[in-house]
Amino acid sequence: MDHYDGIANLMFEMGNLKRIKRTGWWIAGIKDPESIAEYSHRVSLLGTILAALEGADPARTCLLGTLHDIPETRIGDIPHIGRAYLSAKSAESIAADQVADCPDEVNYTIKDAIDEFEAASTSEAKCAKDADKLECLIQAVEYQKTGATTVGPWIDNSLKALKTDSAHHIAHAVINGESLAWQQSRSKE
Amino acid sequence: MDHYDGIANLMFEMGNLKRIKRTGWWIAGIKDPESIAEYSHRVSLLGTILAALEGADPARTCLLGTLHDIPETRIGDIPHIGRAYLSAKSAESIAADQVADCPDEVNYTIKDAIDEFEAASTSEAKCAKDADKLECLIQAVEYQKTGATTVGPWIDNSLKALKTDSAHHIAHAVINGESLAWQQSRSKE
Amino acid sequence: MDHYDGIANLMFEMGNLKRIKRTGWWIAGIKDPESIAEYSHRVSLLGTILAALEGADPARTCLLGTLHDIPETRIGDIPHIGRAYLSAKSAESIAADQVADCPDEVNYTIKDAIDEFEAASTSEAKCAKDADKLECLIQAVEYQKTGATTVGPWIDNSLKALKTDSAHHIAHAVINGESLAWQQSRSKE
Amino acid sequence: MDHYDGIANLMFEMGNLKRIKRTGWWIAGIKDPESIAEYSHRVSLLGTILAALEGADPARTCLLGTLHDIPETRIGDIPHIGRAYLSAKSAESIAADQVADCPDEVNYTIKDAIDEFEAASTSEAKCAKDADKLECLIQAVEYQKTGATTVGPWIDNSLKALKTDSAHHIAHAVINGESLAWQQSRSKE
Amino acid sequence: MDHYDGIANLMFEMGNLKRIKRTGWWIAGIKDPESIAEYSHRVSLLGTILAALEGADPARTCLLGTLHDIPETRIGDIPHIGRAYLSAKSAESIAADQVADCPDEVNYTIKDAIDEFEAASTSEAKCAKDADKLECLIQAVEYQKTGATTVGPWIDNSLKALKTDSAHHIAHAVINGESLAWQQSRSKE
Amino acid sequence: MDHYDGIANLMFEMGNLKRIKRTGWWIAGIKDPESIAEYSHRVSLLGTILAALEGADPARTCLLGTLHDIPETRIGDIPHIGRAYLSAKSAESIAADQVADCPDEVNYTIKDAIDEFEAASTSEAKCAKDADKLECLIQAVEYQKTGATTVGPWIDNSLKALKTDSAHHIAHAVINGESLAWQQSRSKE
Repeated sequence: MDHYDGIANLMFEMGNLKRIKRTGWWIAGIKDPESIAEYSHRVSLLGTILAALEGADPARTCLLGTLHDIPETRIGDIPHIGRAYLSAKSAESIAADQVADCPDEVNYTIKDAIDEFEAASTSEAKCAKDADKLECLIQAVEYQKTGATTVGPWIDNSLKALKTDSAHHIAHAVINGESLAWQQSRSKE
Repeated sequence: MDHYDGIANLMFEMGNLKRIKRTGWWIAGIKDPESIAEYSHRVSLLGTILAALEGADPARTCLLGTLHDIPETRIGDIPHIGRAYLSAKSAESIAADQVADCPDEVNYTIKDAIDEFEAASTSEAKCAKDADKLECLIQAVEYQKTGATTVGPWIDNSLKALKTDSAHHIAHAVINGESLAWQQSRSKE
Repeated sequence: MDHYDGIANLMFEMGNLKRIKRTGWWIAGIKDPESIAEYSHRVSLLGTILAALEGADPARTCLLGTLHDIPETRIGDIPHIGRAYLSAKSAESIAADQVADCPDEVNYTIKDAIDEFEAASTSEAKCAKDADKLECLIQAVEYQKTGATTVGPWIDNSLKALKTDSAHHIAHAVINGESLAWQQSRSKE
Repeated sequence: MDHYDGIANLMFEMGNLKRIKRTGWWIAGIKDPESIAEYSHRVSLLGTILAALEGADPARTCLLGTLHDIPETRIGDIPHIGRAYLSAKSAESIAADQVADCPDEVNYTIKDAIDEFEAASTSEAKCAKDADKLECLIQAVEYQKTGATTVGPWIDNSLKALKTDSAHHIAHAVINGESLAWQQSRSKE
Repeated sequence: MDHYDGIANLMFEMGNLKRIKRTGWWIAGIKDPESIAEYSHRVSLLGTILAALEGADPARTCLLGTLHDIPETRIGDIPHIGRAYLSAKSAESIAADQVADCPDEVNYTIKDAIDEFEAASTSEAKCAKDADKLECLIQAVEYQKTGATTVGPWIDNSLKALKTDSAHHIAHAVINGESLAWQQSRSKE
Repeated sequence: MDHYDGIANLMFEMGNLKRIKRTGWWIAGIKDPESIAEYSHRVSLLGTILAALEGADPARTCLLGTLHDIPETRIGDIPHIGRAYLSAKSAESIAADQVADCPDEVNYTIKDAIDEFEAASTSEAKCAKDADKLECLIQAVEYQKTGATTVGPWIDNSLKALKTDSAHHIAHAVINGESLAWQQSRSKE
């Protein structure tokens, strides 16, 4: 297979991230929750912002956020409770399979980012990991504001997992904050 | 308003990108098309790959792809035909309003990226612009493989708009390539 | 192009109203809100009722309600906040383009109704305008009854915009009224 | 119950038309088809156009189209095959129950329109009946263009049921016509 | 027609149960409610459990639960309020038509189960009937936990209709019970 | 915890089967595919029919079909390709955890059925296993008839996995058979 065919196949595979749902929300009773792609997009935005606040590299953090869940096209989004029943190969080894038919420079770029995210030792990886948790908290608050009474555990557990000061400050502003619809009320003034 | 409240509000506003649909697909008869967030996520992935192939900075290109459509929370996704009837303020000025209540380092990071994307003069911006078009082509091919006979104009117009050699090669591999379900047929072997 | 082809194309274009969503609800956190067609249908019903109560012509008011949002196939449903960033051609001029390939009697019927609605000087146009606001209020109350805590601004702003006494009385009955499910509880008696 | 409460309850009941699906499409394999409200809206548009072409009153025809399916909030959309198993009270008697708590002028306006539609003797009722069939044909063609191979019977049976010359001409233009996406291809020129 | 063709057609017809929605929830304002197939599946599970508790045959009760709503492919899910306007042939006679082209042993198995469920005289039929009501109650509680304030009548009426002690005990445990998300909170401990 | 609380929690957990999607269809490009509950329901129907044809016990086979996928509330629906990356505990051990808080007779009934299905040695288990594959084939054919060009591998692989003669005959009738919409075309005659 030609290298461009390898990239085309990888992109068709990544298209699944638009369809694969975040399974935790099903447990909370949300019938049609966000996709992995939708989730990853705001993780990237949050990572960018956390990096800017924490003195890390925003672009690198954005890249880690964009790529960190790509192995889920192969294994799905395993719910928390599933970890008691499943053991998975490492994200690094799954990503290596995913990019195996791509040219070297693509292959390297993607694997290197997955490795950095998983190792969680750079400032950028720490910000991306916090973005991953903070996104879950914000989405839970949004589901709560539209009626769900079931999302408390997601808010509590995400909050406990945050490491950076900036993520803590944003989390508290989200929890205590204005309505989602602040734009609407303000734009009517 | 506190700076963290400003970020919280920005994140609630960005949550709209999970709900706002790409309106062009409605014209093609697709009832429940991808969201802007889903679209932006694969633009970021494609930008990363194009940058790796074209010798640009993958992380920077990823950042431009992640941020390039954030003004759509304010003006929506204007369909092509709408441009004959609407005139919009610049993306740069809309983004400036969006980040006005954020701390300076966040404000700067986001506005700088929007400015670079819109100016389209760096290699990274060129790769991100091509990723924007190439994503549309890939999504059109995916809708075609699941039945839509209406997406020809999206494939043709996206193909014509591509600038880099790498984007052209990937586009042709996508158009001539295997099924979406190559994973399934291969994994059954 | 033949005149019947012009009508066929107009009907395909109007089919988009089944797919285009009312964008304000996305800001309120509603993922899969009503379409423009669904909205327009109850505007027509409300306009019919308001006209009957206010001594205007119900059929004419119904026609204005049915047609008033057809320009949105060209420019989308612009959210309130978007008006700060976008300037649009008049509804009258957009509708004129939409019906340009239709026979004269069709062309005249549609443009004349759009013009009357936009001028807002006849009793029928006033009832249709109130129906437009009142529908939004009722839909907001319905979203509230199924859990959304975010729709207050839509109820408040719609209420303030109502002009006729009849619309005010209906709005208060809706806000203070029984459950959506009154049919179910009553039919069980 | 106060008359405005009666109208409020009728409007909550009419809100069901945004949720009730056209059941025939489920038989054709369409998972998430149009609602009755979406259907009724284009019936009203088509009725308006047919009346303009056939020399009937467009506004009256629009009203008949808007109201003709309101009894479906009580009995649902009975699929064709269901008629062999179910017998229903007349639309006129169901509508009479629906508006029983409304003021006289509302009550009269709605019942009078349902009666005229069901009697099918005026030009306006004939145009509204043809609009009802023609909408089904156009929707079937749209589902066909997005992939469904199953909708032939809906096209054939709708075509056979049309009475007016104008409806026949439009139907043939729809069947032989351009893509749904004609707007997109033209706007790219 | 060959007997296997008869079974193939029956299975295509049964596929509609994945698309036909439980219409009562539309009255409660739920836009995208469960399908008949989803409902029937948990009726079967509940019937199995009730039979185990009440000393009836779990497998037979499961079969009755799986089959009891198959006539709805022909007549739809008639809302409670619709019973005042519609009279339907018996479930037994509809099922007889549905299986008319199937081999005798299939024909007999299905008709016999429908007859037993409708007669409601065996312990298994009583457990299946209670499962039918109890499922509705559980689903109503789930919609309530995700925001709906409208489902009270479904909980109350289902509770009143239960006949077996076991169903009453389960109903009270559901109403007074933990969150849907008990799995999530427990798995985080 | 009380035994009825145990059953209530199990039923809330089983409610997830209405939300969890069959992940293989995402790979085929189907955005909103069937749920596990919808799938399991037709597996139960097919198992009933296969048992009737093959001389096995239809009710027992129905029970096996209804229960066979309940462990998926804990581990999700693992796509075929995921088996290369994940190892899961046995279905028997997961089911044992799921019913641990239920009364003994419920506990026994469910575990015994899961054990029988997994052992695949009885005629009933063989029919239920074939029903599991045959349902997948029928669903694939249905997606094909509504436009998907991607489902070939699901048809081919399901067909190869069938063991009983009856399942083979039904599969061929499905593949060579009439439209989904045979009801509609026939009912119009």
